[in-house]
Formats: sequence, C-alpha cells, structure tokens
Amino acid sequence: LKEKASMAESMINRRLILQRRPKGLATWEEVVLRDEPVAQLQDGQVLIRNHYLSIDPAIRDWMSDRPSYLPPIPLGSVVRSTTVGEISASRHPNFVPGELVVGLNGWEDYSIAEGDQVGKVRLEPGDAEQYYLSIFGAVGLTPYFGLLAVGKPLPGETVLVSAAAGAVGSLVGQIAKIKGCRAVGLAGTDEKCRWIVEELGFDAAINYRTSPDLVAAIGDACPNGVDIYFDNVGGAVLDATLLNLAKDARIVFCGAISTYNSETPVPGPYNLWQILARSATLEGYLVSDYLDRFPEGIEQMRKWVSSGQIHFKEQIIDGLENTLDAFNLLFEGRNEGKLLIRLAV
Amino acid sequence: LKEKASMAESMINRRLILQRRPKGLATWEEVVLRDEPVAQLQDGQVLIRNHYLSIDPAIRDWMSDRPSYLPPIPLGSVVRSTTVGEISASRHPNFVPGELVVGLNGWEDYSIAEGDQVGKVRLEPGDAEQYYLSIFGAVGLTPYFGLLAVGKPLPGETVLVSAAAGAVGSLVGQIAKIKGCRAVGLAGTDEKCRWIVEELGFDAAINYRTSPDLVAAIGDACPNGVDIYFDNVGGAVLDATLLNLAKDARIVFCGAISTYNSETPVPGPYNLWQILARSATLEGYLVSDYLDRFPEGIEQMRKWVSSGQIHFKEQIIDGLENTLDAFNLLFEGRNEGKLLIRLAV
Repeated sequence: LKEKASMAESMINRRLILQRRPKGLATWEEVVLRDEPVAQLQDGQVLIRNHYLSIDPAIRDWMSDRPSYLPPIPLGSVVRSTTVGEISASRHPNFVPGELVVGLNGWEDYSIAEGDQVGKVRLEPGDAEQYYLSIFGAVGLTPYFGLLAVGKPLPGETVLVSAAAGAVGSLVGQIAKIKGCRAVGLAGTDEKCRWIVEELGFDAAINYRTSPDLVAAIGDACPNGVDIYFDNVGGAVLDATLLNLAKDARIVFCGAISTYNSETPVPGPYNLWQILARSATLEGYLVSDYLDRFPEGIEQMRKWVSSGQIHFKEQIIDGLENTLDAFNLLFEGRNEGKLLIRLAV
Repeated sequence: LKEKASMAESMINRRLILQRRPKGLATWEEVVLRDEPVAQLQDGQVLIRNHYLSIDPAIRDWMSDRPSYLPPIPLGSVVRSTTVGEISASRHPNFVPGELVVGLNGWEDYSIAEGDQVGKVRLEPGDAEQYYLSIFGAVGLTPYFGLLAVGKPLPGETVLVSAAAGAVGSLVGQIAKIKGCRAVGLAGTDEKCRWIVEELGFDAAINYRTSPDLVAAIGDACPNGVDIYFDNVGGAVLDATLLNLAKDARIVFCGAISTYNSETPVPGPYNLWQILARSATLEGYLVSDYLDRFPEGIEQMRKWVSSGQIHFKEQIIDGLENTLDAFNLLFEGRNEGKLLIRLAV
C-alpha cells in the first residue's frame, strides 16, 4: 500500500481550481486548469482515479460566498462535485484498489478522500457505474425523496414542476404519474414540452418563455390548483405559481437556478402572501438529509428504470477540459438530460 | 318573532362602509360612517346588537383587492370584523333574543348574520364577554395553534417572535416559556422590550428600530439559532431572521403587517435561499383552519389566564366614531394590547 501511495505522489493531477468567485456564468478567468502532483495519502484516506464528474446547478451556488448548506468552495481549491471512480490506493481498511466508489470530491483526474466519506458503487446487472451520479445519485434521489417524503402526493392531486425537462424535473413528473397524480411541467422550449408530454407521459406542459400570461397558463393547466410545486428555478415562475396554489399546497423548495448567476441580491417572490392565504407550506429540501434512506431510493429507482416505468437521459461529454462549457449549458437550458464529464482512464 | 323583525326594520344602524380601497393608512375618505335602516331578517338569520368590535391588522388586508384567504370587502359594504353582541331578534331556531354571540360581522351597531355562522359566547366565572374577541378569540387562539400545532416547539428550542409586544406576539412568547423554550421578542420601543422581558418573562428582547445590525442582534439573542420564528411582520425583520435559522427551523407565517399599507408590490425576502440551506419550513397559517379545535384552545387559555401563567392586555376604546383612529394605531405600533371598540348599548 505504501508503495502505491508513493507512486501516486509522482503522478500529475489535472484539476479545475476556483481562482476567483464568478459573476454571472463561470468562465476560464475564474476556474483555471492546473497540473498538480497528487498529494501524499494519509491514514484513513483513499486515492480515487475519477471516471465521471457530475455537473450540477448546485455547484454554481457553492462557487459563491453566500451562506448556504455547504461552505463556499475555498478560493484556490478544486471545484467540488460528486464523482464516480476507482480506488487507486487505499490507507483505509474498508477499501482496496480496483473498487468503484462515489463521493463528494472534485473536478479533477484524481481525488483524495477520507474513506469514511465515500460509498461503494454496487452494480447489479444492467447498471452502469455512472448511474451513481444520475439515476442512483442526487439526480434520481432528489425527486424521489423530495416528491414522496416532502411533497407527500395523494392520488388525484396536481403536481407542477419547473425545469421539467431537466434531469430532476423529468423524474419528478414521472414519479408523480406513478403515484396517480396529474403531472404538469414547465420548460423553456416547445421541443422540451413535447418530449415530456409525448415521451414521458406528463399530462400537460407550459413553455414558460413564450407563454404570454404565465399565471393564466398555469391556471389553465392546473384547473384544480397546484397541490405540489416542485421548484428548481425560483424567480418569476415561482411567483406565477404562487397565484395558482390549491388550499394546503406544498412547495418543495429544491433549487433556484434562475438566481445562481445573479450579481445582486435577488428579491424573494412578490406573491409570498399566497402561502399564508392558502395555508401552504414552503419547505427547504436537501437530499442529503435523506442519506440513511438512499439504499431504499436506489432500489426503487432501479425497479422503475428496469421495468420501463421511468425514462431518463444522460448527456455524457468527454474530457476534463470541456467541464466548464458543459456546466454553462445548464444555465442556458441547453443540456439534454443529466450532464456528466467522462475522463479518459 | 316577526314582530321583532319588523321593529328592527325601523331602527337606524350606524355602519362604517368601505367606499374606496385605501392606499396606505385607511382614512375617512375611504371608510365612511353611514346611517342605514336595519334590513328585514330572513329565515335562518339573526339580528345582533353589537357590544364590541374587533380591530385587527388583517382587516387592512381584506380592504385591499389582492387575492387572499377571504374575498376582498366589496366596495359599498360594511367593513368586515369579528364582533361580540346580543341577539335582538332571531329567525334561527338555535337562538333567542338576549343570548350573546360571536361572529364575523362588521363595524356597525347592528349586524345581520346567518345563524349557522355565529357561535354562542359561554361565560364562566371570571370571563368577560369581550374575551371572545381577545384571549378566547383569534388573538388568543392564533398563538395557541400557531405555536403548538404549526411550530411544534420542543423544550430547549429558541422561539423568536416579531411584534412581540402586540396582542398575538406577547402570547406567543408566554406560551413558548410554558413549553420550556427560550423566548426572544422583537419590538419597536425600549419600553415594549422592557415590558416583555420584565413583566412577561421573555428571555431577551430586541428593539428592531434602533438595533444597528439586526442580523447580529438576533444572532446574539439566539446563540443556537432560531428554531421557530413566529412572524407577524414580514419585510426586513423576516430577512434578518432568515440569516439566523437553525437547521430544520420552522417559520410560522401568520401575518405581514409591514406590507399591508404598501401601495406597490412588495418583494419577498432576499434571503429566501436560507430556507433551503437550513432545510427549514415556511408554513402559511390561518387560525380559521383550527375552528374545530377552538373549544380545546379556549379551555387551555382560560386555565393559563386564571392561574396567572399568561398575562394579556386589552385596550378598549369607546365609540364607533373612533374605530378608524383605533385601527391606525396598529400600523403605527402605538396600541397597547388587543384593541377593541365598545359600543354604547
């Protein structure tokens, strides 16, 4: 083991370092690609050769220094992301080289992690390892626990979801249908709207960019009001939804991608009063609060995927050097499914 | 009965009519005093000689035409308020003249109500009839159900309340203390701050008008973070509180008096993200959702008041003609306890 660890030391690690905090979209001025030697492994640590890096909207939040659920990424450090990779060296008793693991690491070829902080990737027939960054990772489990444990849908209720053609949103609508709800999605192109209705089985879709009156459009698509709003977006779409809440509505507050690139403080919804007027609940939701229930979620998602009840898309882009371009696709709404960077191994 | 009803018809009813929707504080330009004959009673209705009118911040919301939990007061109609009064005539089988009742009626000498929509006032020794507009009415039951059923306080948790020297807020803090919590209040004068700490037993008070850094002041008074924020105010105080939430905090969204007189749309909190970052919940709360549990609440409040565990103040002002001046005391923070108008009988 010691031999391997000292071998690692001589290896070069390509890393994406946060040099400055972005204003607006992140550019190569703020995130720089740097070659660094792999550091010495300490007791309890593992060295991971990353195979896949996750590209998520939340990373943009971590790049800023506003107070959040995780500390800001320190300037001069690698950009934080979940990764799937293979153990190259281990000074932790639970891991041996060759094992696949998933963990909160970074945009880099090699990550060093505390062994207690990574999980083993257990593949069943039909699984792919990158599923642990998509359908079996935050992307799959965020809709699963967010809709079921926070939203608590009842059959016949109406579930509205923003960014409905995105990785999380497309799963929210499909799980809502499995649970007997009416699923309505908000998306930014007619093509996305067609896809979620025709391919994924949503009951209705609204193009929020071209709708002349979003409040009325949501009202038309949700004639009994919105019982559950699964919000990934915030901003004007949240405001329009607030005027369409059913009594006792639940808003699963999962993200606010419309605000992440803002340089100035963003006001909250003008129609916040509607939460009181409808005895509604706005609940902040972090999938990490459900870590101990991940095995249950993975098992259920695997069943739904293998039975064909759930469809999902991955968009895999090769090369660490393309990470930032891939990242910015998210904020332009141009990604098609869960975005992953695949590293040459 | 028919005789009494036709007697009523010849009586003059002084009524405060909403003529126009106020901008800012309501004035006698928008609310006019008008003498009208009492209308003919219909089957199922009762005629009530009002003894007390309730003066509440929520009435300002009902005067506006923004969508809310009750329809706007129609222009040309009496201003809606709860009242306590005596049955003068009845065409409902459950009521006879002389009985005391409470109901959602209006700022007027006489109200006609559906018998099914009013409740009987049951007085035990020590009770006063106007208690049904204060400690046994919305003022007492709003803190009771809002703190206990929505906030769900655990012993040792920190409860922060805005408008803490107000009718609702002062009760929130006292109930929090009974439940073993740390109670911290926000109020607008040093005298109010002293009163809630020295007389009511709050653990700490913050003068939000003079505090140079409200975020830091809340942090100092709530060193373990705010577990429950009972919000009557909204606006900047809510924003400052959001930066001090404990993990899994609950915000009981009960009112937003800071916004009721605004002429332009008011943005929601800039720090809404903290609800996600802390896995917190913002729950819109209407005491009317707990109507079927009112008897339980009244019984408990009566016990706490008679045992001296709960103190409350009523500010009783005589004369229908003083109603509007009394109403505006609320928005200037100049009332001292629950405001009531007493009518000469």
